[in-house]
Amino acid sequence: MFRRWFVPIAATITALTFLLSFTIHPAKSQSNALWQVYETSLKSAKYVDLTHAFSPTIPVWQGFGKATFKPAVAGAEIPDYVKVGEEYTYGTHGFIATAYELPTDQYGTQLDPPAHWEEYGATISDLPATFAVRPLVVIDIHEKVAQDPGYHATIDDIKAWEAKHGTIPEGAVVMIRSDWYKKWFTETARFNQKPFPGVKLDALQFLHLERQILFHGHEPLDTDTTPNLEGEAWLLHNHYTQAEGVANLDQVPAAGALVSIGFAKPEGGTGGYARYIAICPPDWQYGVSVLEAPGAPLPKQPHPLRRDANGVLKPTP
Amino acid sequence: MFRRWFVPIAATITALTFLLSFTIHPAKSQSNALWQVYETSLKSAKYVDLTHAFSPTIPVWQGFGKATFKPAVAGAEIPDYVKVGEEYTYGTHGFIATAYELPTDQYGTQLDPPAHWEEYGATISDLPATFAVRPLVVIDIHEKVAQDPGYHATIDDIKAWEAKHGTIPEGAVVMIRSDWYKKWFTETARFNQKPFPGVKLDALQFLHLERQILFHGHEPLDTDTTPNLEGEAWLLHNHYTQAEGVANLDQVPAAGALVSIGFAKPEGGTGGYARYIAICPPDWQYGVSVLEAPGAPLPKQPHPLRRDANGVLKPTP
Repeated sequence: MFRRWFVPIAATITALTFLLSFTIHPAKSQSNALWQVYETSLKSAKYVDLTHAFSPTIPVWQGFGKATFKPAVAGAEIPDYVKVGEEYTYGTHGFIATAYELPTDQYGTQLDPPAHWEEYGATISDLPATFAVRPLVVIDIHEKVAQDPGYHATIDDIKAWEAKHGTIPEGAVVMIRSDWYKKWFTETARFNQKPFPGVKLDALQFLHLERQILFHGHEPLDTDTTPNLEGEAWLLHNHYTQAEGVANLDQVPAAGALVSIGFAKPEGGTGGYARYIAICPPDWQYGVSVLEAPGAPLPKQPHPLRRDANGVLKPTP
Repeated sequence: MFRRWFVPIAATITALTFLLSFTIHPAKSQSNALWQVYETSLKSAKYVDLTHAFSPTIPVWQGFGKATFKPAVAGAEIPDYVKVGEEYTYGTHGFIATAYELPTDQYGTQLDPPAHWEEYGATISDLPATFAVRPLVVIDIHEKVAQDPGYHATIDDIKAWEAKHGTIPEGAVVMIRSDWYKKWFTETARFNQKPFPGVKLDALQFLHLERQILFHGHEPLDTDTTPNLEGEAWLLHNHYTQAEGVANLDQVPAAGALVSIGFAKPEGGTGGYARYIAICPPDWQYGVSVLEAPGAPLPKQPHPLRRDANGVLKPTP
């Protein structure tokens, strides 16, 4: 009996507490509803980073080049402080900064805006503020990809997900789990070689036209292996966005998580250097909660930061 | 009577619906609790972008230089398709991309990690996944700044906020509204001239040590006007982060909103090219909801995209 009645009883207490809060302070409760959401649902959630950090050594399409990371130097003389071209250092100036040469914005974990392919398309800085937090759907094709690395997700894969979890929520972000991301560090060249897993054009059309999703995402750096990249062409020319180079989809639930969508905002940019965070239920086995990783203060490095041969700062004994 | 009882009655209906959902499908409701949060609280919320898009013409500290934006070119020859150094164009190649030279990561709307000043500090790629969605507190000093542009927020300003809204939630992001951001386009040089509004060191210490906030943010490009930047020094050497160059804080509520924290994730980076989105209550007067700006498909540009003299893509008649 305990098990059978525990959930309804707990829910009743929650509901009555909720009701009571309205009865006593209607105005305050109304304005604090989102903070209540944070306290009851987001604070104890498990956060999983779906982002590869980008660096000069990551996979990139062969038609572009790789990024250069280097120390920031003075762009102008400041008398008695710094000369033009002098590197800023912790010792002399009290701080450092990093300079980047990025030959492309199609780099690392990305958010592609339509302007990448479509000359009437929205740029990265045109994306509305509602690109923020959305339901996260994960469609798992990793076992099929293990059998056939060129496997492309189908409408049937989507319908199989829906048979288990219900209709995909409108406005969701739908990520395709292939486990291809595991090759990111070990088989960099593999991101420029076919076969690799993709998503079929009719599956993308189903997701957008029948389910009205916000965007889909995948782990490789292209949407499919067709010669004319028909999936990406259809998406961007029809004013949809997409995520590429996504990581850690094996560590999030197929349904029930949210995703926080972050990216740098260069004006008129044709690509998004992105950061996606999955927000999973409190009892999820992966990720960290705010209680476990509050973020302030942050842990101290074990060794001082020094640049490696590629200009990347790392704690260095 | 209607007004007096409406809120409790509506809350009762909500509470009973909530209770019923648990009674009928306890397991499913549990795993879908975060999606329920999206449907009931986030979908109808009003989203306000707190980010300046960055470009080659924005304010930057005089000791650095400004960014360069330019078309991406081929980094390698691909026979019968592109030669090294050839610009990718919509017409010839079917797509474009953008290349950036960023002389500093202290640029635009930022998230400063400790590594910017502290050689044992966390870098931008070390920040935990829990930098995602937090309560947003806005402390308003804009009227004092209108009288005295060098005004710095005090512990009393924080306590005045708390007298109205209650104790600042642990883990919150606390933004200081000065309305200084309104000078971003019109008085660029003003971001390198004192006086400008700041935050007093003891106020920062109060926020972190007494209230355990995640980070504070401000609209200018520095935390205070002391000669040794004592606020930033204390924050970063004590392994805290901070936001700079924040915009539109006059368009969000003092209490009750959430903030979505996004940024590019270069490995070992000393700065964060950031994007902050305020998530405000549904009846808030500013911002757009997911229903109003679903984000898919995105609006078409009125004219084709062309680069301006600074390399920034803009719809151009």
